[in-house]
Amino acid sequence: MPRRTNTRERLIETAAGLFWRQGYAQTGVNEIMQQAQTTSGSFYHFFPAKQDLLLAVVDHVGELLEAEVFAAAADRSDDPLEQVFAVIDASRRHLESNDFNLGSPLGALAAELSASHPEVRERIAGLFDAWTDRVGALLEAAGSRLPPEIDRRALARFILAVVEGAILEARVSRDLTPFDAAVAELRRHLALLAPGVQPAAARSAQPRPTPRPQPRAADWRAW
Amino acid sequence: MPRRTNTRERLIETAAGLFWRQGYAQTGVNEIMQQAQTTSGSFYHFFPAKQDLLLAVVDHVGELLEAEVFAAAADRSDDPLEQVFAVIDASRRHLESNDFNLGSPLGALAAELSASHPEVRERIAGLFDAWTDRVGALLEAAGSRLPPEIDRRALARFILAVVEGAILEARVSRDLTPFDAAVAELRRHLALLAPGVQPAAARSAQPRPTPRPQPRAADWRAW
Repeated sequence: MPRRTNTRERLIETAAGLFWRQGYAQTGVNEIMQQAQTTSGSFYHFFPAKQDLLLAVVDHVGELLEAEVFAAAADRSDDPLEQVFAVIDASRRHLESNDFNLGSPLGALAAELSASHPEVRERIAGLFDAWTDRVGALLEAAGSRLPPEIDRRALARFILAVVEGAILEARVSRDLTPFDAAVAELRRHLALLAPGVQPAAARSAQPRPTPRPQPRAADWRAW
Repeated sequence: MPRRTNTRERLIETAAGLFWRQGYAQTGVNEIMQQAQTTSGSFYHFFPAKQDLLLAVVDHVGELLEAEVFAAAADRSDDPLEQVFAVIDASRRHLESNDFNLGSPLGALAAELSASHPEVRERIAGLFDAWTDRVGALLEAAGSRLPPEIDRRALARFILAVVEGAILEARVSRDLTPFDAAVAELRRHLALLAPGVQPAAARSAQPRPTPRPQPRAADWRAW
């Protein structure tokens, strides 16, 4: 693995912003170099081809998910089920802070590149799996609050589908209402599965926990 | 509105296939003209700019949704809730028939173009609304099988989120398992909301109603 340097990180963060804003195909290497204020020598030293940078961007999202989304969710609540909703709330804040111009960092690239870039698709599938494992573990930690016959991993996959779909609906309508409605219905689902799970919250359309300052929030928001 | 001709339809169907396979930005007007075997005179007669063709493609999806997905679902079952699952099953068959290379006709364009093409975004939002209205009406038709306090339209939006997210997961993993798991969980949700709704089906991971021949299935499958 190449050593991390400021230039490499700057290229990754710049590319991430451009890929999410305008798509991978629409973003040229020159545009990335200009915006990251680097030379082509530096660029090709770190990334022999544009796709190498794309793979690094996907890995970077994985790191951010861990460092900012899951770690921050753990800071916000000791309750594993509330941590799941704190993870979901990170997507809501992300939509809000970029004025709906950017959706799911993985979802948008997956939609654009799944058919044409198998290696990228596999890397994104790996991150979806990691997300599912993390949320599945939180559902596991909820123990007897969910019925024993419920497959936690399948439920986590369902939650990922709800979140990715809700992000898409919010982007398209430029409105958080469908996102909040989907999350409220998901809360209702968990409440129906396990009546002990915050039934009051399940009826609230807009759960809004207080955001806490995050170490590298600027990166995440920039997308 | 321009009169429909074979050339116009061929351009729309060709462009639809290319946009979904490789994205809007990646598809050039020349490529569309070549594949549709038409001249630039014909092309620009019908579509002064590439975006005009894109808008026609989005409208075309709306027509197909009505003609092939909702009408076919109505043919498959008299039960409004089963019609909802027949609509969802159309997406499953679509993923299967194109070997996961194409996802949601609207979702993929929405992800690529929401930020950069406001007019396209609005048109897609209109189709999402139409889908939600249609599914909401089916949920309404379920009458007392769903509890009266459930907002049918909000539930329809939730279902749309589940389906769009499940399509994305299936595409990325090239596997129908996450799609089927999400649909099974959705069935469980409806069953929990209204215990009268097919509890047996709620436990089946792969509901597979027999497909019936569809009038223009070739178009839909081609995407």
